[in-house]
Amino acid sequence: MEKSFKNLVKSDYPYLCGSKLLLAVSGGVDSVVLAHLCHTAKLDFAIAHCNFNLRGDESDGDEKFVVDLADFLEVEVYTESFDTLQYAENNGLSVQMAARELRYEWFSELSNSAQFDYTLTAHHANDNLETFLINLIRGTGPEGLTGIKKDSNKVIRPLLEFKRSEIEDFARKKNYKWREDSSNSSDKYMRNKIRHNIVPVLEEINPHFLDSFAKTQQHLQESLDLVEDYISLLYPKLVQKVTYGYAIDIGFLKKVPNQKQVLYQLLKSFGFTEWNDVYNLLDAQTGKMVLSDSHRLIKDRNKLLLTEHQENSVGKEYSLEREEDLVMIPELGTFHFNETDKLGAASKSCIYVPEHKLKFPLVIRKWKKGDYFYPFGMNGRKKLSDFFKDEKFSLPEKEHVWILCSDNEIVWIINHRADNRFAVEENDGRILKICIS
Amino acid sequence: MEKSFKNLVKSDYPYLCGSKLLLAVSGGVDSVVLAHLCHTAKLDFAIAHCNFNLRGDESDGDEKFVVDLADFLEVEVYTESFDTLQYAENNGLSVQMAARELRYEWFSELSNSAQFDYTLTAHHANDNLETFLINLIRGTGPEGLTGIKKDSNKVIRPLLEFKRSEIEDFARKKNYKWREDSSNSSDKYMRNKIRHNIVPVLEEINPHFLDSFAKTQQHLQESLDLVEDYISLLYPKLVQKVTYGYAIDIGFLKKVPNQKQVLYQLLKSFGFTEWNDVYNLLDAQTGKMVLSDSHRLIKDRNKLLLTEHQENSVGKEYSLEREEDLVMIPELGTFHFNETDKLGAASKSCIYVPEHKLKFPLVIRKWKKGDYFYPFGMNGRKKLSDFFKDEKFSLPEKEHVWILCSDNEIVWIINHRADNRFAVEENDGRILKICIS
Repeated sequence: MEKSFKNLVKSDYPYLCGSKLLLAVSGGVDSVVLAHLCHTAKLDFAIAHCNFNLRGDESDGDEKFVVDLADFLEVEVYTESFDTLQYAENNGLSVQMAARELRYEWFSELSNSAQFDYTLTAHHANDNLETFLINLIRGTGPEGLTGIKKDSNKVIRPLLEFKRSEIEDFARKKNYKWREDSSNSSDKYMRNKIRHNIVPVLEEINPHFLDSFAKTQQHLQESLDLVEDYISLLYPKLVQKVTYGYAIDIGFLKKVPNQKQVLYQLLKSFGFTEWNDVYNLLDAQTGKMVLSDSHRLIKDRNKLLLTEHQENSVGKEYSLEREEDLVMIPELGTFHFNETDKLGAASKSCIYVPEHKLKFPLVIRKWKKGDYFYPFGMNGRKKLSDFFKDEKFSLPEKEHVWILCSDNEIVWIINHRADNRFAVEENDGRILKICIS
Repeated sequence: MEKSFKNLVKSDYPYLCGSKLLLAVSGGVDSVVLAHLCHTAKLDFAIAHCNFNLRGDESDGDEKFVVDLADFLEVEVYTESFDTLQYAENNGLSVQMAARELRYEWFSELSNSAQFDYTLTAHHANDNLETFLINLIRGTGPEGLTGIKKDSNKVIRPLLEFKRSEIEDFARKKNYKWREDSSNSSDKYMRNKIRHNIVPVLEEINPHFLDSFAKTQQHLQESLDLVEDYISLLYPKLVQKVTYGYAIDIGFLKKVPNQKQVLYQLLKSFGFTEWNDVYNLLDAQTGKMVLSDSHRLIKDRNKLLLTEHQENSVGKEYSLEREEDLVMIPELGTFHFNETDKLGAASKSCIYVPEHKLKFPLVIRKWKKGDYFYPFGMNGRKKLSDFFKDEKFSLPEKEHVWILCSDNEIVWIINHRADNRFAVEENDGRILKICIS
């Protein structure tokens, strides 16, 4: 196994040589073997061990074991102690998920602060098979059937093609010491059922099962790669970057076969769960929307708009004193107030207002239902909602509208339209130029 | 179950009503239940039963049982007796594969001759799961993971969403009689292992496993549908119909991501097994090829040519007597010999030859190594192999070349070039126009 590990590093992971590696070591046989293999292969690595404090003295024993191993191998060791149960409770997670999150978060911090190039974990072929079967049993998308990645986000799993039995045989042959995990979590319970009751039957029927399974997964991954290629090909025709997110062209989507599945592929990483509602949006009225934890998908005429959830700033107000030349509004940008004598060309981001018509303090706030104004260049008054409708504002665009008010009268729909009441007339005297950037 | 079957027919298979159906009935509980359900739903069906003669008296008992069932349901019954073992031996098949081939072949014949619209089989959710697991255990492409199709090639499987236990419970509740299959074939052995040792553990871990499995398979199928869409999109740019098959444009293929996988998708139904050899063809020398049982893939400059295996007609000869006006050559077409006085324009499919220069009988044969001729319009002689090289013939094109000879001299490379020695000169007298169509 030493030899095949060295060959593997040479052929598949040549970049590990000369890199600074962080090895995740629990103390179990897999990670202990990986540590020894890295040592023999003369890789430059340190060891990281998480103490999840889930098994009292045993957890502390694991930690001590790993520290001693690092000492023996003469490599640096990092340990961290977590209150996993508390974290799980606080975040509504299972203990397994909590441990997973804590582990990867800490590894990531450690990698950054101590400048490791890669993190190595000791996942092997049986872990991969068990994960496949767990996903299969629970129900999964195609991604859940393709297994643990050999290499993703700077986490490398160089033992992924070795079987548990090979690793254990090797450890015994070498007289390595390791720690047995006595935990009996529900995830572990499922893994044990799979490990002891299912996998042996699969291997009894086909003694080369793990090898053929690797090929099966590879074929599946290759097919899914083509799905990615297809979506990449459609993407520029289907999706357009717009001010507050992305717009999906429904007209184009409807010309593509299997439109629902294409939509699923486009949106799968945005946390939506109610897929039938998503599909129904295609034929829904403008304004209908479907929410995920992080995003909204909004029907807007012949588009689906994908935007992040907007922090609700309705009711928020900023007050502007005359004295200030420059005011920062976090949601909007910077206001500049300049006195001027000559009237320049107005634009979406600049207006000219006679100073004497403004009553300070001015107020900057989100628009609200019932607001109306007198559009610049027109005599009549108009509801803001009607203005938005005429201008074909999408919902996210409407939500991002702020207004500048003077004594409860709208001076400016910021970035969109000035109010006629505040237009500069003859003999208006000093003029204020208000710009946003 | 009667009600849900009726609803299912209404919603998913409305075309079954009013169609003429052929029901495959083995005598086992699944097909017996399907027969009763079709009867209750007043569908228009006949029963077909294959006697594979694999279990002696038991097989005959099954046949009698099915005939009696048809009698009881007052529907027509077709039975056929097969020497399955002999067929398996003759065709180098496993007994299961032999039975499968014989069954589908006979159903197909029966459907055609007795004009059935659809064939119905009683495959259910557990069959589907078992097939998935068998494929998984043996190793499979992604298609092998998506399961038995509800509807393919006019074969419908309306019980596919019902579980074995539901079907058996229903049969017992209704007091139906059926036959138990005592066979113990290797396929059955594997199925039994899966049925009794694996599936119960899966269902113990997740009591709703079969439902979530159906969704998992559906998601996978949807992804594979996108792969098909992608390949369809690339197809017109990648593949061109040529005279003896199809040409794949290597230049275009190399611009596409995951080119090997795209090539696999294009070629997967042509029986190739040595995929690395196929992929290596992309950078191989012109003339290299990879064979499947039915096809050849040949590197030809910047193309891969896919052709069916050519029946080898090297050595085959046809002899032409002068007297015949019209000669059929199966591999080539029809020869027409016409005496003429005036010289017309020669073409690829017609030549003009002075009658006195020909020595009968003429011979039509495949070209062979060492053949040479005097290209029309030139004085020198040329090897046919050089001629083909200059004309950039692909291997299949070369293989399809026949020549017309007179006294061992080449008169015509049929469909390509005449020989200068047989060109019409002044005072040549009677001219023969030889055409092929």
